[in-house]
Amino acid sequence: MTSEFFLTGGKNKQHSPLLLTPGPLTTAHATRKAMLRDFGARDSVFIDITRSIRERLLSLAGATETHTCVPLQGSGTFAVEAMLGTLVPRAGSLVLVLVNGAYGRRMVEILARLDRSYIVYETEETMPPIPTQIEQLLSHRQDITHVTMVHCETTTGILNPVEHISHIVARHGRLFLLDSISAFGALPLDVQTTPFTALAGSAGKCLEGVPGLAFVLCHRTALQEAAGQAHAISLDLEAQWTAMEKNGQWRFTPPTHVVVALSTALDLFSAAGGQPARLARYTENCRVLIEGMKALGFVPLLPAALQSPIIVTFHMPTAPAFLFEEFYRRMRCHGYVLYTGKIARKESFRVGCIGAIEPEDMADMVKTVNHVLHEMHVLLSTE
Amino acid sequence: MTSEFFLTGGKNKQHSPLLLTPGPLTTAHATRKAMLRDFGARDSVFIDITRSIRERLLSLAGATETHTCVPLQGSGTFAVEAMLGTLVPRAGSLVLVLVNGAYGRRMVEILARLDRSYIVYETEETMPPIPTQIEQLLSHRQDITHVTMVHCETTTGILNPVEHISHIVARHGRLFLLDSISAFGALPLDVQTTPFTALAGSAGKCLEGVPGLAFVLCHRTALQEAAGQAHAISLDLEAQWTAMEKNGQWRFTPPTHVVVALSTALDLFSAAGGQPARLARYTENCRVLIEGMKALGFVPLLPAALQSPIIVTFHMPTAPAFLFEEFYRRMRCHGYVLYTGKIARKESFRVGCIGAIEPEDMADMVKTVNHVLHEMHVLLSTE
Repeated sequence: MTSEFFLTGGKNKQHSPLLLTPGPLTTAHATRKAMLRDFGARDSVFIDITRSIRERLLSLAGATETHTCVPLQGSGTFAVEAMLGTLVPRAGSLVLVLVNGAYGRRMVEILARLDRSYIVYETEETMPPIPTQIEQLLSHRQDITHVTMVHCETTTGILNPVEHISHIVARHGRLFLLDSISAFGALPLDVQTTPFTALAGSAGKCLEGVPGLAFVLCHRTALQEAAGQAHAISLDLEAQWTAMEKNGQWRFTPPTHVVVALSTALDLFSAAGGQPARLARYTENCRVLIEGMKALGFVPLLPAALQSPIIVTFHMPTAPAFLFEEFYRRMRCHGYVLYTGKIARKESFRVGCIGAIEPEDMADMVKTVNHVLHEMHVLLSTE
Repeated sequence: MTSEFFLTGGKNKQHSPLLLTPGPLTTAHATRKAMLRDFGARDSVFIDITRSIRERLLSLAGATETHTCVPLQGSGTFAVEAMLGTLVPRAGSLVLVLVNGAYGRRMVEILARLDRSYIVYETEETMPPIPTQIEQLLSHRQDITHVTMVHCETTTGILNPVEHISHIVARHGRLFLLDSISAFGALPLDVQTTPFTALAGSAGKCLEGVPGLAFVLCHRTALQEAAGQAHAISLDLEAQWTAMEKNGQWRFTPPTHVVVALSTALDLFSAAGGQPARLARYTENCRVLIEGMKALGFVPLLPAALQSPIIVTFHMPTAPAFLFEEFYRRMRCHGYVLYTGKIARKESFRVGCIGAIEPEDMADMVKTVNHVLHEMHVLLSTE
């Protein structure tokens, strides 16, 4: 511990700063403590942990009957790339990519590198895809085989209408591939109400594990048909699945400590009330944040109807005395790590609402923002 | 902690079993304890940690002037695949793969999937490649552009003559790509004496970090020329490097806890005397193991001259009372995790010598083997 770390408020009093970012997040002490043990990857204890995690993730999406859970070493992007590379055939396929931010664009970048055919439907970063237009596209373009989109675009924090779109895709008999990396575990998502072929999620987001592990919930038939199709051995979900079904072991060395951390994080998740409770806490974090920041003169980018409870983008204040670098540095010294903006047209910054943080942490954070503004002699107009 | 874990001996008294495997390994408590803190991936503290790790890994191979270190999320195989996919052009290249075990075969599998041209030079699993034959191959086949091999084949524990081969490859003006996953940090390897274009290593092997992070030490010119060449976005070392040089940040969410564990593991590594000290400890672990096991009637697969101090393969005893499943289970109950065999022709099992284990741990382990053999009423002949 160095002296630069301050005690932060709320139930999570600790010496590390609170991470108000889209991940890595602030995690529970118990989750990190699970990493104090070493596990053999081929040992039965670890095999049981892997199996239990896969089962719990599947049932979170109500997909135990139809799908399987394939865990993958790496970040969320590794899982998204594995999902696209494994499930989209090299020939005879056309992917419709719904884009309104950096993670949608990243799927386009992946498909281009993998030499898979795609077309892009792009809306402004502050606008979700319009379901009637997707309906029309699928009616007119019979050659579209897959539709892919991002559940919650971390670029802005926008919540995309995945349930609505998924039904349109299903009605047209196309395959639906969902990047739910930043949302899975907090936003409701059940395969009955949001039919999907595959969904990519991550240990280190709303499930509040540590980063280094991602997963794809994948329809078993689609996965079976994808044998040998992936562009990379390491990212081949079908091969990963087949090997794992055989003896419960990972094909390649798993990040054992990260895996057991996720197991503990899932224990805490269930004990606290599961997805509805997590959504309620994040929603309250988000409300306290937005109301508090508005009262100080900050303006959120998105209207309330489009705002997810995952991360909030604020317009950069135009007051001349407000220098973001300085604001970031001072907040950091007070124990809060904020996040820079990523939207294309306007200056902005972001504050994450997810992780092991409570509404009272958010209230303390807003008080600290007020304090820092005074230190910087910044007064924002609060019309 | 559950009651199934026993106290083990040596300096590493702990409740977890000792992992006598090729990884995940038994790590130092301080290394695991580093994971008790959360870090923001874009925060300056974490950026400094990443930079320091990259510098230390580079100087371990004496490659600071010419190469760069590109860390990568995932297991060692992810790094090997990234190395091959990034550095071997899709057209106009031919890779000579030296194979004498599963990890050599895995490189062949990767090249096949990536549609890169290759030829295989294969020797028995108990035989290293013969330098004069490689010399001849390179003389006769001018179309060979790259040579790749495994430093220490975990399949058997065989030590391959990388220094000798690397000089032949350099003299013929070809590029040398080395899988040093299981050896880097323990076996001496300096770019002056073993010239390489790229070397893949892992956090969770002889450096005694935790698994979930690998890296490639890569010649900077070769990497620059590889822009856009990789088969996968996630495994694109050139893009990973370019992004990291820009602002010190990872392109995609890094496994922050695994990264800080490696930083601490490298601190311990240096404090204990670096590579020579690590090699000395592992060599002594290996000596105690082999001598002890031989005295009990076990027969090592390899002659001493080919045996690396990383992992030892033993022939499976033929005594009818010796059932390996039962032997494994009993050793596990006493706190030792062994490893199954992987060689093609004969039944075998393996015992790893690496990780935070001391020669006295090995001596205790051998005593336990003796005890278990008695429990199982097995008497091996010790001619």
